[in-house]
Amino acid sequence: MKISHIEHLGIAVKSIEEALPYYENVLGLKCYNIETVEDQKVRTAFLKVGDTKIELLEPTSPESTIAKFIENKGAGVHHVAFAMEDGVANALAEAEEKGIRLIDKAPRKGAEGLNIAFLHPKSTLGVLTELCEH
Amino acid sequence: MKISHIEHLGIAVKSIEEALPYYENVLGLKCYNIETVEDQKVRTAFLKVGDTKIELLEPTSPESTIAKFIENKGAGVHHVAFAMEDGVANALAEAEEKGIRLIDKAPRKGAEGLNIAFLHPKSTLGVLTELCEH
Repeated sequence: MKISHIEHLGIAVKSIEEALPYYENVLGLKCYNIETVEDQKVRTAFLKVGDTKIELLEPTSPESTIAKFIENKGAGVHHVAFAMEDGVANALAEAEEKGIRLIDKAPRKGAEGLNIAFLHPKSTLGVLTELCEH
Repeated sequence: MKISHIEHLGIAVKSIEEALPYYENVLGLKCYNIETVEDQKVRTAFLKVGDTKIELLEPTSPESTIAKFIENKGAGVHHVAFAMEDGVANALAEAEEKGIRLIDKAPRKGAEGLNIAFLHPKSTLGVLTELCEH
């Protein structure tokens, strides 16, 4: 598996509107896009910091996994996404061969049109881990 | 406040020895240093991914804040550290002026000899946030 960098950090927030003043006015980052991912029941706001994006995730429904995450653990870092140099499908095959539990057996489309797949946090020492490629 | 990139992600693990095979053999990253920060009661292992480090944090005592974090929330992402272009002291002054609660009122030495300071997660939407400079 070959990772080039951390593509983004997914951060669960109750409200993007409440979160953006901290990220923009205190940290000095800039939100360049907001989009809704209907099938995940989330609204996402993107900010860039170095090579990495911060993806703020706001639940659009109480059934959203993000709503449940906030209920159980509180707002905060939800997942870490790595950019794969050799593609997500290859990385998934290698991870599975090495005994890692997969959430997604095959790549699917995520926010910003990336090919993505998640590894299960039970196999990744508690860090919900996303693999992605452009 | 001017952030150049994410300097590191602090990830709480029960055991560095148990965690490294995943990071090295599955993700393909390389641990280049392990050190103990006595006053924080943690042992830290460093891996590099792009411009960002992954800092695995293992408690060396049940009184370590990392031990308590794992007890309350489980192993996983503990903090996000930003590299400051204009220094930590400046950033702290600006954050305080903007109403952010500080854990450290002044920069102190952290792992790898960096000047660091933490912002309180109550002011940063649940993300324990470290500011650092070389």
